[in-house]
This record gives sequence, structure tokens and C-alpha cells, in this order.
Amino acid sequence: MTFADDSLVRLVSTDRFSATIAPGWDIMGNANGGYLLAIAARAGSEAAGGRIPVSITAHFLAPGRPGPVSIDTRVEKKGRRFTTVSATMADESRPVLAMLGSFADRDADLNPASRIEATPPEMPPPEDCVLLEPTETFPPPFMGKVELRLHPEDAEMTSGIPRFRGWFRLRNQEAIDSFGLLVAVDAFPPTIFAAQMPVGWTPTLELTAHLRGIPEPGWLRCEFTTRFISGGYLEEDGEIWDSSDRLVAQSRQLALLPK
Amino acid sequence: MTFADDSLVRLVSTDRFSATIAPGWDIMGNANGGYLLAIAARAGSEAAGGRIPVSITAHFLAPGRPGPVSIDTRVEKKGRRFTTVSATMADESRPVLAMLGSFADRDADLNPASRIEATPPEMPPPEDCVLLEPTETFPPPFMGKVELRLHPEDAEMTSGIPRFRGWFRLRNQEAIDSFGLLVAVDAFPPTIFAAQMPVGWTPTLELTAHLRGIPEPGWLRCEFTTRFISGGYLEEDGEIWDSSDRLVAQSRQLALLPK
Repeated sequence: MTFADDSLVRLVSTDRFSATIAPGWDIMGNANGGYLLAIAARAGSEAAGGRIPVSITAHFLAPGRPGPVSIDTRVEKKGRRFTTVSATMADESRPVLAMLGSFADRDADLNPASRIEATPPEMPPPEDCVLLEPTETFPPPFMGKVELRLHPEDAEMTSGIPRFRGWFRLRNQEAIDSFGLLVAVDAFPPTIFAAQMPVGWTPTLELTAHLRGIPEPGWLRCEFTTRFISGGYLEEDGEIWDSSDRLVAQSRQLALLPK
Repeated sequence: MTFADDSLVRLVSTDRFSATIAPGWDIMGNANGGYLLAIAARAGSEAAGGRIPVSITAHFLAPGRPGPVSIDTRVEKKGRRFTTVSATMADESRPVLAMLGSFADRDADLNPASRIEATPPEMPPPEDCVLLEPTETFPPPFMGKVELRLHPEDAEMTSGIPRFRGWFRLRNQEAIDSFGLLVAVDAFPPTIFAAQMPVGWTPTLELTAHLRGIPEPGWLRCEFTTRFISGGYLEEDGEIWDSSDRLVAQSRQLALLPK
């Protein structure tokens, strides 16, 4: 099954969509947050008449387990340029995710001015990076759905620097659209794993992605960094670059630092 | 009138609050986005039983004009640690803002671990920075509600660097709580003003703030930067530090780069 298949949504009644959290997208039994957001974003996009997400936020309410979910959408505003949609995804017993996003036309006439203060992360080519393959213990099944190759320096997780750099694509080189980008922005291991701090897992409270463009075919180059571990939380900032050296997504999530 | 007065909300029926967009908080007639978000956040906080915002996102749907607004709230989940609330603010004719946020107890028992990869911006003391005072033309009335003193290097707006650094407090040294921080994260001039690009205004599509703590009394030190002007949009990243050198808020907004 492709990502496109696994993230399909179907309109079942006014403003209500159904979808299925497919098996295999999980980390320790819980579906990847970016994958869940991609499903919700597809429902939001449908509710927005096919417009695609520009800025989208998810708050994660409960782990997503394989099986049916419903997505209730509400168009907050349909404007000339943007349609803003809120949505709630729920499984049969509880809410899983709340979403708020603004969607725009794919071929919107935008200001082409560009000024970029950063560059894609410098990395060895994909074949010299470290592929994360699912095993019976670790990495998780999710890594069978995506192809993630970590910068060798970061793969060792001994740098003490809360950062991961690597190459990303969907398996079978499936094309990456706006929804695939939402998987990319949440596909890497938590930066805390590289920080050598005594914390096992940092659950994501909230994730926001800004989608700046549809990637050209090929590998994405990704960098995730954390600058502030403080006040019980940490942020993870992501930058996603396509094969034409264009920034296609920027993301930030707020994660809880457990005691 | 204090900020606290000007951002009051009142429960009028189940899940519905009323509030008033007060005069004087505007830029060219449109209320400051952080001020609007603060009102919505107060309603969200009430709906969350008095919990305070940790991560909160607003999508701006229409300019806020002085006068009455309603805020319809929906508790997406009430959890042990977080209550997640969505809300829509509307004036008498149209929706103004959509909000999604997670709220936590003020005295939550959090992991005190800290690792910070940044420092507050270095600036001359407030008295040697450039106070923005409202005049009949510029700066706008909003600057009468806050006391914003720009780094002299940035106040000239000739650096070509899309960055503003400065000191912030509310007028009359009103104490700044979580809601006051939401004003701070949107109080500075658009970074594009310092970038010397031929763009007059960059309307904010979406603003997300992560609130890491309640500030100690005194001035806040703030820095806003833009790294990616591309694809028709730009982000503005904010960092807010309190008088004890603690990061109290981090923010990011996505703004449209008009043609």
C-alpha cells in the first residue's frame, strides 16, 4: 500500500470524513504524528474544495491506533486566497487529534521574491548515510514506510547535540506532495535521542508545519534541531529542502520533557 | 484602561464568551493580532477551567475592529495534564480569528532540566533604545498600549537584515502574564521593514506561540528574525526573555508576501 492509499479520506456526511489508520505507520504501537496529521489534512483539503495546506497545526490528544477514524471538519472561513478549516479526528472511543489549518490554491499567484539565510544541511550522499530499517525491536515499523538515511555523525547519537540531519523519501519513491511533507516533518527520531540526556521519549503536544512548495522529485534533505530545553518542554525545528535546493517546508513542534 | 481590562471575556452561554475589542490597540485601524489572540486565549483558558496556554495557534481571518466580539469555544479534550480547546472569534458580521491551543495548570510539576543554545539579545539599556511613541501618522496607536524600545541599530531600518531586537513592557508597567506574552510576540514591526525590500506590509496568516513560563517583573527582551522569504511567504521567529534571563516564550508566524 502506498502512502496515498494509507491516508485516503472519504466524505460520509456533511463535513464528516472517514479514514483508516493503517498498520505499519506506528512507533511502539502508536501511529506517527505526521501520518495522522496528513490524514486530517486531507480531510481539511477536501473541505477546502481541494486547496492545499499552507500552514497547519495539530494538537495530539491520544495515540492513534490502527483502525477506523472519523474526521469532523468545520470551514472557519472561505476567502479569496485562503480557506481556513478546523477538524477533529476521533477513533471509536476518543478524540485523537485536533487540527487547524489554512489552505490555498495549488497554483496561487505568489510573490517570487526570495531571500534565504540558510542552506540545506551538508551531508554525504544517501548511499553513505545510515538507513533506518525496522527490526523486531528497533527502529520501529514506521521506518518501513519511509526511507530515512541519517547523517553518519548524527546516527551514532553520541554528539550530545540535539540535532538530526538526513535524507527522506517515501518507500518505492512515491511522489511527495503537501501531505507527504507532513510525514517528513515528523519522521525523524526525537532530537533528545542525540542530546544524551536521561529522557526516554518526548511526546509531541503540538506540531505546526508551513508548506512553502511542492517538492521536485527526489530525496528531501532534512534537518531537525532543538535550541531550548526549558520550562518542561522543548521545541523541534525542522527544515525540509527538495532536490532543487528549495526550502519546501518548515516545521516546529512542542514536546513535553517527562520527569 | 489596562491590558487586563481591555482583554476581559465574559461567559454568556454554554461555551460562548463575549468580549470587546478596545480602541487604541490598532495598527492602521486593525487591532494587533497578538491582542486579538490574547482575548481568544482568555476565553480558551476559561473553557479550560483556568488552565493557562502552553502552545496556542491563531489563524487570522479578518481585521479586528473596535467593538463587541463573541468567542465560541469547544473543549477538544480535557486531560490530566492538558486541556485542548478550539475557538472562533467573530464580530457582528464575520469570523475574525480561529484558535487552537493546549492549556496546562499554572503550577504543573515539570522537568526542570535546562539546555539552552541561545542567549537574550545584547542591547543597550532601555533608556538608550528607541521608544516607539504613537503620533498621528506613525507609529500606530497600538504603540501607546505597549512600551517598545528598539535596538538603535534596528530602529534605523537600514541594516537590510530582517530582524528587530528590543525591550517590551505593557504601559504603566502592568504585570505580564501568559496573555500579555501573546501581545509581546506580535508587538514588533514586521521584520520586512528592516529588510529593505519593496514590500509595504506582510499580513499574518498564522501565529503560534509556545509559552515556557510566566515572566519575572521587569522588561522583556525580544528578538524577531526571518530566515526564509520564499514561496510567497515569510516566517517571523520570536524569542522573548524575562529579566531573570529565562526564555519565557517562543513564537513563529507565517506572513504573506504580497505581490
